[in-house]
Amino acid sequence: MTAFKEINAPLRTIMTPGPVEADPRVLRAMSTPILGQFDPAFTQMMNETMEMLRRIFQTKNQWAFPIDGTSRSGIEAVLCSVLEPGDKVLIPIFGRFGYLLTEIAERNGVEIHTMECKWGEVFDQQDIIDEMKRIQPKVLAIVHGETSTGCMQPLDKIGPACRELDVLCVVDAVATIGGTEVKVDEWQLDAVIGGTQKCFSVPSGMAPITYNERVEKILAARKKVERGVATEQDRVNVQQPIRSNYFDLSQLQDYWGPRRLNHHTEATSMLYALREGARIVLEEGLQERFERHRLHEKALIEGIKAMGLGLFNDVPWKLPMVTCVNIPAGVDGDSVRTMLLQQFGIEIASSFGPLHGKIWRIGTMGYSCRKENILFVLGALEAVLIRHGAAIQIGQGLQAALDVYESPVVALEASESPYAAVKK
Amino acid sequence: MTAFKEINAPLRTIMTPGPVEADPRVLRAMSTPILGQFDPAFTQMMNETMEMLRRIFQTKNQWAFPIDGTSRSGIEAVLCSVLEPGDKVLIPIFGRFGYLLTEIAERNGVEIHTMECKWGEVFDQQDIIDEMKRIQPKVLAIVHGETSTGCMQPLDKIGPACRELDVLCVVDAVATIGGTEVKVDEWQLDAVIGGTQKCFSVPSGMAPITYNERVEKILAARKKVERGVATEQDRVNVQQPIRSNYFDLSQLQDYWGPRRLNHHTEATSMLYALREGARIVLEEGLQERFERHRLHEKALIEGIKAMGLGLFNDVPWKLPMVTCVNIPAGVDGDSVRTMLLQQFGIEIASSFGPLHGKIWRIGTMGYSCRKENILFVLGALEAVLIRHGAAIQIGQGLQAALDVYESPVVALEASESPYAAVKK
Repeated sequence: MTAFKEINAPLRTIMTPGPVEADPRVLRAMSTPILGQFDPAFTQMMNETMEMLRRIFQTKNQWAFPIDGTSRSGIEAVLCSVLEPGDKVLIPIFGRFGYLLTEIAERNGVEIHTMECKWGEVFDQQDIIDEMKRIQPKVLAIVHGETSTGCMQPLDKIGPACRELDVLCVVDAVATIGGTEVKVDEWQLDAVIGGTQKCFSVPSGMAPITYNERVEKILAARKKVERGVATEQDRVNVQQPIRSNYFDLSQLQDYWGPRRLNHHTEATSMLYALREGARIVLEEGLQERFERHRLHEKALIEGIKAMGLGLFNDVPWKLPMVTCVNIPAGVDGDSVRTMLLQQFGIEIASSFGPLHGKIWRIGTMGYSCRKENILFVLGALEAVLIRHGAAIQIGQGLQAALDVYESPVVALEASESPYAAVKK
Repeated sequence: MTAFKEINAPLRTIMTPGPVEADPRVLRAMSTPILGQFDPAFTQMMNETMEMLRRIFQTKNQWAFPIDGTSRSGIEAVLCSVLEPGDKVLIPIFGRFGYLLTEIAERNGVEIHTMECKWGEVFDQQDIIDEMKRIQPKVLAIVHGETSTGCMQPLDKIGPACRELDVLCVVDAVATIGGTEVKVDEWQLDAVIGGTQKCFSVPSGMAPITYNERVEKILAARKKVERGVATEQDRVNVQQPIRSNYFDLSQLQDYWGPRRLNHHTEATSMLYALREGARIVLEEGLQERFERHRLHEKALIEGIKAMGLGLFNDVPWKLPMVTCVNIPAGVDGDSVRTMLLQQFGIEIASSFGPLHGKIWRIGTMGYSCRKENILFVLGALEAVLIRHGAAIQIGQGLQAALDVYESPVVALEASESPYAAVKK
């Protein structure tokens, strides 16, 4: 029998749009011994995690809890729980993850309407509002931060318009939660899905979601309790059952709520990780964390530009935690990425569809969003581009980034925080 | 703002039918830093995990990989990927998790046929075969180890009969994989779902599955590639699409297979955990591991009986890793469980439906299946029952268990293995 060796993972500097480096405190938390799912010590942690998620989503919603699966499991849980066959859904698409929303929604036998804009752009909110008036969908499903193009769709006017038009506003905030503002209540978003493996710096494997009473009303009408745990009072048959047992939010509510009705066995170690990750986000402070993401983004952008490279997403709607760099003419983008990984242990990303081979995507998310990572990636990229014969401004990238870090508004104080660079 | 404290989980002795204690090596593996999902170092670990799962499932199937979700996510992935509206499914039910199969299957618009036997019994295989002949279902879905009743359904004749009758045999082996024989190929099972948080001693959050080319043929007919990653050659529309994107095995295959087509972001730390857990299973050896489960089961049973307590599942079809104890007349079962947890830090389980309040369920699974745990739970149970005024044989339980451990066939050699008791 072939022997399988102990895990010996190389240590990487991960500067992709996810998964990114997990906070070491999160990794340690995962080593905590298992607790039973109904152990009072564990249900207390579940409740605490819900409360922390509410704060991070900036919402007073009762329901804020993780789905036990990767990010897209959260999207599917929301969509399959609210969508019934024949429903109309409007999906504005401005990159790959807009397509994913159609992929998930269409499995529910719904009527999908899409609107598309060029990859690299976002929609004028009024255009989406006008289309909602025309289509009159039950649900608007839209991506907030589109990592495939590095663009961020403004939502502050769309949410209130949905409320007015009686449309349910479902937002994929997988890339943005914990890295920039996602104002669930202020923007009047009805259901929002976050990601763990991006700005949260928790490993992939859970999808925190939140939703309000408008969603809950739909769930209530479709709710059934599982045979095997149902009592006489419980309904076990409904007209339009949710098409998934695993993603049935009406049942998940009963598991996360005071009734604690057995559903799945909560993923213990991932819950520890999410709880610790949420705690770190709140300890740093939402505003401070967003500011840190902007600072390192700025240093990266200035470095990239000073090198003589062009930005694909040098636009007002740039996603702050993803910087898309135009691959210079004549340079093999995948070869550069391979050399970065093999020689420097640095991972950056390519893109999808029409942008594959045209841009690199550099993520500055969560724990990966640190000064030393920015400086390392800029220095490495320069060296690799020189090796690839690209015509760049040698020596300028790091100088420009250092200028940002040494500018008067940012005092590089000694501090206990690993994020000292953002302390003023 | 309320401060959320660092995790301070109490250390429990977990003797439920899952989740059970994770192997400390598994917990350590989870602290390994993150790797990108397409990092060659990570895809190699994915491949190694597949190979180890094949050995544990005792199969030559190409496909053996985890679904990123808790155990029931694996069941749902298999059922929703093979079931199309109008299909007939036969589900023999002998406990709560048989009901779960109906709950998951019915979401796919199928025609469900059930057969039930009394909780505590299992089916004569011929009865199931006869019913298959009558119903002619596309799929037979059946539980192998029913933790709610502590019973195990023989499958060795059912699998070949399914093959003969052209029925797809789908087996929930969540409770049994890694703890007793699950001979996928020899029994001719077409798709099998295992669990991590039971005999595998890996935290909940992944569901290892395997399936053969009979299942693959159905997937091939329903396969579509996601817009956003599809190329010109790929089909993006199909007649009967699988009702879930997240659980679409045709897409998951492309992610786990050589094409490595982007789907979800593999749950990095859980994959580390599963890989380490699988490695531990194979290092111990399947037969040795099964023997260990039988040994400690025997010690527990002898101890329980010597105490004067009755076994609910003292039957030839007893599930080796779950021992169901009749709650003595006049004793409040939940009060006993609470005292075990609060005074001893020991968790045992109650049951569901008709058995709630009638039996306790004691799990002897994976890492929790150790001599010191058996002895601790017997000693604690005696003390708690005395406190509850139960008429038991005082002092006899531990003596009977020690007799098992000291019997001539089991030499308690000093050994590096934490499972020294089973070394001969």
